[in-house]
Amino acid sequence: MPPRDFLMIPGPTPVPDAVLQAIAEHPIGHRTAGFSKVLREVVDGLKWLGETDNDAFVITSSGTGAMEAAIANVVSPGDKVLSLVQGVFSCRWAKIAEAFGARVERLEVNPGQAIDPDSVKKALQEDSSRSIKAVTITHNETSTGVVNDLEKIVTAVREHGAVSIVDGVTSFGACPLPVDEWGVDVLVTGSQKALMLPPGLAVVFVSKRAWQAQAQGKSPRFYFDFAKYRKSLEADATPFTPNVSLVAGLKQSLALIREERPEKIFARHRRLRDALRAGLSAMGLKLFVEESCASPTVTAIFPPANLTVDAIRKGLRERYRILVADGQEALKGQIFRIGHMGYVFDRDILMTLASLESVLTDLGYPCPPGKAVAEAVSVLGRATP
Amino acid sequence: MPPRDFLMIPGPTPVPDAVLQAIAEHPIGHRTAGFSKVLREVVDGLKWLGETDNDAFVITSSGTGAMEAAIANVVSPGDKVLSLVQGVFSCRWAKIAEAFGARVERLEVNPGQAIDPDSVKKALQEDSSRSIKAVTITHNETSTGVVNDLEKIVTAVREHGAVSIVDGVTSFGACPLPVDEWGVDVLVTGSQKALMLPPGLAVVFVSKRAWQAQAQGKSPRFYFDFAKYRKSLEADATPFTPNVSLVAGLKQSLALIREERPEKIFARHRRLRDALRAGLSAMGLKLFVEESCASPTVTAIFPPANLTVDAIRKGLRERYRILVADGQEALKGQIFRIGHMGYVFDRDILMTLASLESVLTDLGYPCPPGKAVAEAVSVLGRATP
Repeated sequence: MPPRDFLMIPGPTPVPDAVLQAIAEHPIGHRTAGFSKVLREVVDGLKWLGETDNDAFVITSSGTGAMEAAIANVVSPGDKVLSLVQGVFSCRWAKIAEAFGARVERLEVNPGQAIDPDSVKKALQEDSSRSIKAVTITHNETSTGVVNDLEKIVTAVREHGAVSIVDGVTSFGACPLPVDEWGVDVLVTGSQKALMLPPGLAVVFVSKRAWQAQAQGKSPRFYFDFAKYRKSLEADATPFTPNVSLVAGLKQSLALIREERPEKIFARHRRLRDALRAGLSAMGLKLFVEESCASPTVTAIFPPANLTVDAIRKGLRERYRILVADGQEALKGQIFRIGHMGYVFDRDILMTLASLESVLTDLGYPCPPGKAVAEAVSVLGRATP
Repeated sequence: MPPRDFLMIPGPTPVPDAVLQAIAEHPIGHRTAGFSKVLREVVDGLKWLGETDNDAFVITSSGTGAMEAAIANVVSPGDKVLSLVQGVFSCRWAKIAEAFGARVERLEVNPGQAIDPDSVKKALQEDSSRSIKAVTITHNETSTGVVNDLEKIVTAVREHGAVSIVDGVTSFGACPLPVDEWGVDVLVTGSQKALMLPPGLAVVFVSKRAWQAQAQGKSPRFYFDFAKYRKSLEADATPFTPNVSLVAGLKQSLALIREERPEKIFARHRRLRDALRAGLSAMGLKLFVEESCASPTVTAIFPPANLTVDAIRKGLRERYRILVADGQEALKGQIFRIGHMGYVFDRDILMTLASLESVLTDLGYPCPPGKAVAEAVSVLGRATP
C-alpha cells in the first residue's frame, strides 16, 4: 500500500483533516439562514485576515477566474494598463487585460528577478497625462518563486492615481498583506494555497477606488460582476449558487488560521523557506532566485548538471510519492519547484530534503550525506520562536 | 438531535454517500497522470450520457458561469440573438447576451407556459436575411417547472442556421437529451442537479458548428475560453486548476448513473413527477404548470387561499427539516417549488407529501386525510417497471 501523494507543489496543497471533514458534510441549501451565517463568518474572517474594511467576496471559480473578474470589472476596452511582468502568472494579467481590449504596457524583468519598485515609480511618473488606468501586480510569482515588495509598488501606484490590481493567490495568508495599510485596490486569491482548501473557490477584495472604476467600467460581465456580489452580500447571500462545501471548508480553515495566529503562520512560512533553501544549498544545488526576493511559499531550483528535471520529479514521485512541480513554459525542464504553502510544517521540509537527497544520490549526483537535513534542522532551530 | 436539512429544492440536491466520500478524499495534483485518468473518464462519461461526439469540458464555476462562457465564446458584440424567455433562467440568457453587447430579440411567453416550437420556427422563418446568429433556449425552466420540447425547437434553429445555445442545468441527466441526435450546438449544465454533486462545477458541450462561431467570436474571454479547454484536454488536462474534488465526485456519480442506467433514471424522474402532481392535486392544491409541459425535476404549486408561501415553507423547514423553494422575482410569495432531481426516490415523494399534508393541516387548510399519499402510491405502483 503506497502512501497518498504528498503535495509539495504550489497548489493544490495539503488540506487539514478538519477542513476535509467540513467539505465532506452534505451540502446545505444556499438560500438558508444556516448558509448566510457561514458566509458572513467567512467574509468577516477574510477581512480580518486581510486587515481590511474593503468589500470581500467569494467567487466559485479558480484563481484565474477571479483575475478575469478583476479585469472585467475595472478595465474597459481601450484603457491603458501597466502590467508588471516577471513570469507566467504576472504575464497572465497582461493577457487577460489584452483579451478585454486594454492597451497593455509591460514593465518586464527576467524570470527569477523581482520588480524594482523604483522602476514602477519611474514608469508611472513618466505617464504625465495620467493615461494609465490600472497597474497589474503579482505579489508572489509562482512560476519562479519571487516575492515582490508589494507595499512599495502599491504606494507608487497610489501616488500616480491608477487602480492597483494584485494577484495574491500564493501570498495571501502566507505572508503579511495588510490591504488597507498598503492601499491595495483589487486583491485576488484562491482557495488551494495558503487558505488550505481544495481548488474551486476564489476570493476578491475591492476598495472604494476600485468601485469608482467599476462603476465606469464598460467590459462585459455578468457571472463575474462585482456589483451583483455586493448587492447579494447585503443579504448575506451570493448572486449565483456558490460552492457551499468549499465555503464551509473555508470557515474551518479560517478558524485554524485564527488559532495559530497570522503572525506565527507568516513566521512559519519564512522559516520553512529559509530551512529549505539552506538545505538545498548544502546539497550543492543552485537556487533560481536570490535570497532578497525569495518567495515564502515556493522555491525554484536548477537541476544538477547532467540530471533532468523529469528524472528528479519522477524519482520523488515514484520512490517517495512526493510531488514537486516542473518549470512552466520557457522554464519547463529548466527548473523544478517545491511548494511550501499553507498546511506545511518543519517535518515536511526535512522529509522533502531527505527524499530529494536519496533520489539525487540514486541518480548519481554526489550529495554530501545528511548535510542538507542538518543545515535545515539548524535553521529551523534558530528560527523557531 | 434534528435530522439534517432534506433538500427538496431545485439545487443543491441530495448527494449520495459514495459521491461525498469521493469528494472528501484529499485532493490530488491536477498535473498528474492520476488526475488525467480521472478527467478522461469523466469527459468520456459525460459524452456517453449526452450521447454525443461533441467536445465536453468541465469548468470550475456554477452553471451561470458556464452560461456566460457559452455567450462569450459564441456571441459577438452587435450579433442578433433570439432569446426564448419564460422565466428567470431563460431571461438570464438574454441578460448575459445583452451584457456582452448582443442585440437581443425576446420571444416571450408567460411564466408557467412552454415555448411553442412553431412560434420559434415562425420567428426564424421571418428572419429571411439570416441575421439571427444564435438562439438561447432553456430546456427546463427551473423558476416555474416547465420543460420545453427541445428537440422541435432545436430542429427549427438548425433549419434556420443559427447556433443553438441550451441551458440543460436542470434537465441533463434527468430526462433524455441526446445532443447529437437533436443537434444541440452548445449545451450547459451544472453539478448540483441531476449529476448529484455539490455545486461548484459546470459542464459544457460544444458542436462543430459552435466551434465555427467560436473561431469568429469577438467577445473577450480568457478563463472561459473554450479553445483553451480544448487544447488542454488534448493532454487530458484543464487550462486552469480545476476543482479536483468535484471532478473525482463526478466520476463516482457517473458510475452510479451507469449502474442505474439513464433510461431508468429518466423513467424515475417522470414517475416521481407524476406521483407528486397526483398527490398535490389530491390535496386540492393548484399546480402552476399544466401536465403537457410539466418538468420532470421541479414542480411549482400555488399556496391555498389564505395561506402564505412563507408559512408553508417555514412549517416544512421547522417541523420536518424539509426545504422547498419560494418562487423567484415576480413569483416570490406566489408559488412554492419542490425539486425532485437526481438522488431522489419514491419514498422521498411520499415523505414530502405526508409532511406537506401535516403542515397544511396545522395551518388550518382542510386536507383530505391520507389521500395525497394514497394517490401517489397508486401512481408509483402503476409506473414502476
